[in-house]
Amino acid sequence: MTIKSFIPPQRTLMGPGPSDVSPQVLSALARPTVGHLDPSFIGMMDEVKSLLQYAFKTQNTYTLAISAPGSAGMEACFVNLITPEDTVVVCRNGVFGARMIENVQRIGATAVVVDCPWGRAVDPQALEDVLKQTPQARFVAFVHAETSTGALSDAKTLCEIAKKHNCMTIVDAVTSLGGVELRVDDWGIDAVYSGSQKCLSCVPGISPVSFSEQAAEHIKNRKQQVQSWFLDQSLVMDYWAGQGKRSYHHTAPVNSLYALHEALLILQNEGIENSWQRHQQQHDKLALGLADLGLDFIVPKEERLPQLNAVYIPNNIDDAKVRQYLLNEYNLEIGAGLGQFAGEAWRIGLMGYAARNENVVLCLSALKEALTKFA
Amino acid sequence: MTIKSFIPPQRTLMGPGPSDVSPQVLSALARPTVGHLDPSFIGMMDEVKSLLQYAFKTQNTYTLAISAPGSAGMEACFVNLITPEDTVVVCRNGVFGARMIENVQRIGATAVVVDCPWGRAVDPQALEDVLKQTPQARFVAFVHAETSTGALSDAKTLCEIAKKHNCMTIVDAVTSLGGVELRVDDWGIDAVYSGSQKCLSCVPGISPVSFSEQAAEHIKNRKQQVQSWFLDQSLVMDYWAGQGKRSYHHTAPVNSLYALHEALLILQNEGIENSWQRHQQQHDKLALGLADLGLDFIVPKEERLPQLNAVYIPNNIDDAKVRQYLLNEYNLEIGAGLGQFAGEAWRIGLMGYAARNENVVLCLSALKEALTKFA
Repeated sequence: MTIKSFIPPQRTLMGPGPSDVSPQVLSALARPTVGHLDPSFIGMMDEVKSLLQYAFKTQNTYTLAISAPGSAGMEACFVNLITPEDTVVVCRNGVFGARMIENVQRIGATAVVVDCPWGRAVDPQALEDVLKQTPQARFVAFVHAETSTGALSDAKTLCEIAKKHNCMTIVDAVTSLGGVELRVDDWGIDAVYSGSQKCLSCVPGISPVSFSEQAAEHIKNRKQQVQSWFLDQSLVMDYWAGQGKRSYHHTAPVNSLYALHEALLILQNEGIENSWQRHQQQHDKLALGLADLGLDFIVPKEERLPQLNAVYIPNNIDDAKVRQYLLNEYNLEIGAGLGQFAGEAWRIGLMGYAARNENVVLCLSALKEALTKFA
Repeated sequence: MTIKSFIPPQRTLMGPGPSDVSPQVLSALARPTVGHLDPSFIGMMDEVKSLLQYAFKTQNTYTLAISAPGSAGMEACFVNLITPEDTVVVCRNGVFGARMIENVQRIGATAVVVDCPWGRAVDPQALEDVLKQTPQARFVAFVHAETSTGALSDAKTLCEIAKKHNCMTIVDAVTSLGGVELRVDDWGIDAVYSGSQKCLSCVPGISPVSFSEQAAEHIKNRKQQVQSWFLDQSLVMDYWAGQGKRSYHHTAPVNSLYALHEALLILQNEGIENSWQRHQQQHDKLALGLADLGLDFIVPKEERLPQLNAVYIPNNIDDAKVRQYLLNEYNLEIGAGLGQFAGEAWRIGLMGYAARNENVVLCLSALKEALTKFA
């Protein structure tokens, strides 16, 4: 086959991520590559750290960006903190809680699962009950914003319960960071990971993480080597946190970090509380419109993520045909269902730069047309 | 601190990587982001696979790009193929051979080391001797192009020896791919990994890998789960190799893959043999000039990598001052020594887009001035 330069279509991205990336971020991405030990780049990394501390609402020294997607950020948190002897209580109310369990098991550690219905928040009482019967547990892990269902869990309360039982907390904030309230320090989160491509509206491929002082101490004092060399934070920290001299670990994804820097700067300039509010306002508009179209949300109102709107596909409608129509006729991507909701739901994202008036009206108008056409 | 958009300086990158990225690749990088399951993107991934097969000179079905830097590509090869019961013979003639040993050990497997002098190629006889005494070994691992010293090993011969002893081969081609002859199929390489930021002259953050049919079968048939969820190729293969329907594993680094596609296309358009030749020609010019400056290579002529020129720093010269001068006055980056050669050597890269006349004369002229100034 003859291969030519790839010119992608100009889509509007309203799926579960990647979300729309602003031209400003794409422009930063394309700036000339410098070396990963260039003094100018090191200065930029310090700024990324400070901007991430702002976004996570944390003072944690060990706040940095993993050079890989969110699932590697998840793995970085688990493999650095957990050893095979550990018992981890994991809450599962969707695909990403299940992935946490996989991570625990691949370490050879024990996962005790708090199962909650898909499409609902994690039930704090269920966590408390399991913790009472699992005194050996030293870690609690849960997903703040379940991307597979659109459910928002009460991270503050879940962390309080974990702390009462002397557990450190590992929190998936892939879809929550920048889109809903998240307070790493105030809530007592010990390890948190996110993704660049959701409410930060940066290109995919980078995973912001932050470790509390307690978690960082735990990593430094562990006797067993971390099973992953690439994700071993005791090595990575020397590159990111090194005062003055930085030691080489791996070659950082220089240009992607330019983009993350710019995306975080946009967030800081807007003000993170304003960003949370914008996501809620756009969600309210979208939710009204979806109700007009007769589409029902999976998640009850008070547990709903503004940035991920999962609605049931009406019985008479062909899932694939509608999504194809939106893509082909409107260059609009919405997400398919995942896991238990595969074929049953659509996931409409309103993340970061995508959470704006133009997108909401485009989505509602195009969806209305498609529903009429394929009814 | 007040943070502004980051505008990097325009450097000429002649270190050990990242290498100069062409404007054409940066332009591809900045194209609008599409979803990782968008039909247009899936088509582009098929092309990336085909272009990687061209670059690796392989027909391997399982040829793809890991969504993380070369060190994750290394880890992907080891954790997928090796289990704790395995014995792996690892050749070490620099930093990256040592990293391979780390990988084997973190799996809990046994590494039997073939130690060779730093700055020299791996000695085939030394490998043969160790293999004769290690009948339980089922894998041989070595670095084709040692980025820490600039030594090129005879991958063809090393693979022949490994095969004679019924071992599969794991080869680090991070710095070799695109810069020197590499024939994955003809030489019998079972697992190979590279990096985007060396002779492919793409932005850092992506690691091309390829697995032979035997290696792919071995991965499919293994009974023990791969210790890394993120790097588990039995899952990743469903996303990359899936005929027709692709299953979601993680969110691919969409824009970085645009850039890789473009960089590989440039390589294919030049012709890979022409690229090998260009690296050799530019190296010959540079080597002549370095000799004129009285700088001695670490590696003997016949074992030298054209794309990585490691030379001893003269006794009377301050390493850091020279490199700073080049960076500040000429925006020229050359590399410091690494490992045994830290403070002892400079590493001058001529990789991919950086291997051109302009760079060679710039480097020689600027270096001459700095050597005079700081003598």
